[in-house]
Amino acid sequence: MGLIVQKFGGTSVGTPERIKNAARRVARTREAGHDVVVVVSAMAGETDRLIRLAREVAAQPDEREYDWVVSTGELVSSGLLALALLDKGVSARSIDASHIVRTDADHANARIRTVDTERVRAELARGAVLVVPGFQGMTESGDVTTLGRGAGDLSAVALAAALKADACEIYTDVTGVFTSDPNVVPRARKLARVSFDEMLEMSSLGARVLQTRSVKLAKRYGVRIHVRSSFSDEEGTWVVPESEVMERLVVSGVTYNRNEAKVTIFRVPDTPGVAAAIFSPISEAGILVDVIVQNVAHDGKTDMTFTVPRGDLARCLPIAQEVGRKLGAGGVVSDASVAKVSVVGLGMKDHAGVAAQMFRALSAEGINIQMINTSEIKISVVIAERYVELACRVLHDTFNLGAAAPGAEES
Amino acid sequence: MGLIVQKFGGTSVGTPERIKNAARRVARTREAGHDVVVVVSAMAGETDRLIRLAREVAAQPDEREYDWVVSTGELVSSGLLALALLDKGVSARSIDASHIVRTDADHANARIRTVDTERVRAELARGAVLVVPGFQGMTESGDVTTLGRGAGDLSAVALAAALKADACEIYTDVTGVFTSDPNVVPRARKLARVSFDEMLEMSSLGARVLQTRSVKLAKRYGVRIHVRSSFSDEEGTWVVPESEVMERLVVSGVTYNRNEAKVTIFRVPDTPGVAAAIFSPISEAGILVDVIVQNVAHDGKTDMTFTVPRGDLARCLPIAQEVGRKLGAGGVVSDASVAKVSVVGLGMKDHAGVAAQMFRALSAEGINIQMINTSEIKISVVIAERYVELACRVLHDTFNLGAAAPGAEES
Repeated sequence: MGLIVQKFGGTSVGTPERIKNAARRVARTREAGHDVVVVVSAMAGETDRLIRLAREVAAQPDEREYDWVVSTGELVSSGLLALALLDKGVSARSIDASHIVRTDADHANARIRTVDTERVRAELARGAVLVVPGFQGMTESGDVTTLGRGAGDLSAVALAAALKADACEIYTDVTGVFTSDPNVVPRARKLARVSFDEMLEMSSLGARVLQTRSVKLAKRYGVRIHVRSSFSDEEGTWVVPESEVMERLVVSGVTYNRNEAKVTIFRVPDTPGVAAAIFSPISEAGILVDVIVQNVAHDGKTDMTFTVPRGDLARCLPIAQEVGRKLGAGGVVSDASVAKVSVVGLGMKDHAGVAAQMFRALSAEGINIQMINTSEIKISVVIAERYVELACRVLHDTFNLGAAAPGAEES
Repeated sequence: MGLIVQKFGGTSVGTPERIKNAARRVARTREAGHDVVVVVSAMAGETDRLIRLAREVAAQPDEREYDWVVSTGELVSSGLLALALLDKGVSARSIDASHIVRTDADHANARIRTVDTERVRAELARGAVLVVPGFQGMTESGDVTTLGRGAGDLSAVALAAALKADACEIYTDVTGVFTSDPNVVPRARKLARVSFDEMLEMSSLGARVLQTRSVKLAKRYGVRIHVRSSFSDEEGTWVVPESEVMERLVVSGVTYNRNEAKVTIFRVPDTPGVAAAIFSPISEAGILVDVIVQNVAHDGKTDMTFTVPRGDLARCLPIAQEVGRKLGAGGVVSDASVAKVSVVGLGMKDHAGVAAQMFRALSAEGINIQMINTSEIKISVVIAERYVELACRVLHDTFNLGAAAPGAEES
């Protein structure tokens, strides 16, 4: 008899039928004797509709009112899920997140400060399932805030952490976290467990199963997350502390990100302050630089290469050119047809030679590595975009990530 | 420099463009130096969509959660209107009605208990236009309630009454209150003023310009209402205390209601308690009886005739037959093709002969009067439905309600 937080994403509550399906899951958990706090996203497409409306009435939407408008999607779905539960005879009530989740005043991207667990516990003590609208909270002064796109996960993890819940189940439209994108690597296999750090590297690299901020929060508070499909009963993937990951695979996943563009500023002076001179104006323009590589200098000059999201390339280039001019650089070139492929794994920490094995495998296929970036549990390479699928499959095989045999896949 | 409450109905905020149009009106009132409290309905069609969703997830929707869901439409439109105002440089903020409107716990049809005027005044003192979601409030225990369909008007009047506003402007999709339905009586003329009582008789009779409860509330607190179109600048109709209606027309309007069906129970005993025996079970079935006529008795027996909404006839008949059997009545007949036509006017109080004039005019056209019902300022007749248009036009002419000449209409 524990306390379970269950979170249903936008597709999982996208239609009345799916809301009733979600209610059946909640009811089953309740029948098993658990206390249940449910966190819901807005019905799929609803938040986009509200954002569109806000932008249509105001060129520069006021942030307070904008949050007020876009937060209503979750109010609807939380009420509907409570209705569906009550209709099945399950005691339930929706509760305004603004009454229990206190945030700072950074509208549209607010951070959770505190969760009023007393209020939640009082409601649970009455025997009801509590349905909480995700993605939102309220400031000290009573203004509704939203926590950023995808922050329904964050709400769920924050509640689970504050309530010291036994588990946080995230229901979504995939069955778990895979060793790679099954659309690209047919032999990709669902992982039974991954560590928070592996998940962070995977989600920030585009696995897009869990919002990154929510994984960071789960890691900080040790909240065990069960990512699973709302459309099937199979076990999903547990995202857990490193200590709980028994089988520490050298590499547990291969991920990719096509949304990259590469910029090189040639022959900049190799003196202190040059990196700052280049990246400060780019950062000020709100462009997120991903991989940065600076080679050793020749004649006091060096080449600076970095990647940015492809959609920001057009904005980034004039800035890079202006900086290049000021620094007396040799010129600026760019390539919008690159992609990043990464291998992630806790076991990498102790095993030497993973990088060498990775580079050898790519080389054997004639794939040229343009940039390399490494962290403790991740190695990323930037390659020509046309090799993405090939690189993923080769690396998946190289590190033996595939199912033993097709048809005998672990679930 | 006064305080104006402005209410925009669903069609007046039905699209982003219309919301911006409403914002322009509010801005103009603000520029004239007035404090403004705006009450908004949900965007046209939105409340119906939410009701449909609630009914799809639950066969018997829980009333608390149902109110929670259907109240969100006004949250969206209030936020959008505040956004549009701020975008025009007008200081504005939406405020949750649940923070200022306290109601009883009669969900879906709650009654307003109190309005927190201090909170409203504090916000107004900061120089902002306040945008309040109509149609809703909150119980003492913190549950969201709704006030019944069309209750956006009620919210506006309640706020105007509590704040002692100088006027309550109701923006809608018609230009005011007319002497009759212009679709039926082409010479119908917009009234500059009507009294609360006239308006009550007209709106309950199907003029459908203002919600009846809101007119009753306005009458009780003396709130002057200006009904006008949000799509034109012309003056609308002022709904005011009787003392302010200078020109007390004998008849100020001719209205009709096609939605009537007639039921007669023949030869029931003319003894005390019979009316109660007939109408109690009908009322318990939730059927609203409109006109009742009981003729003088012969041989201790009388005929009881009444009208009900046409859609309720099928439910009403078996009840009437059952009651008739118990009372030993002579039989039950019904007619679903009747309609009610009424003339309304304050001047009727002092002028004898209005009824005679009305009956004479109808008779001259060969229209048979099946039932008659009178109040202090209204005379209604039930006639065959096919005569509705003819009767309205004849009465409109009889009481000289038309414009002096086409093309020279008063505005």
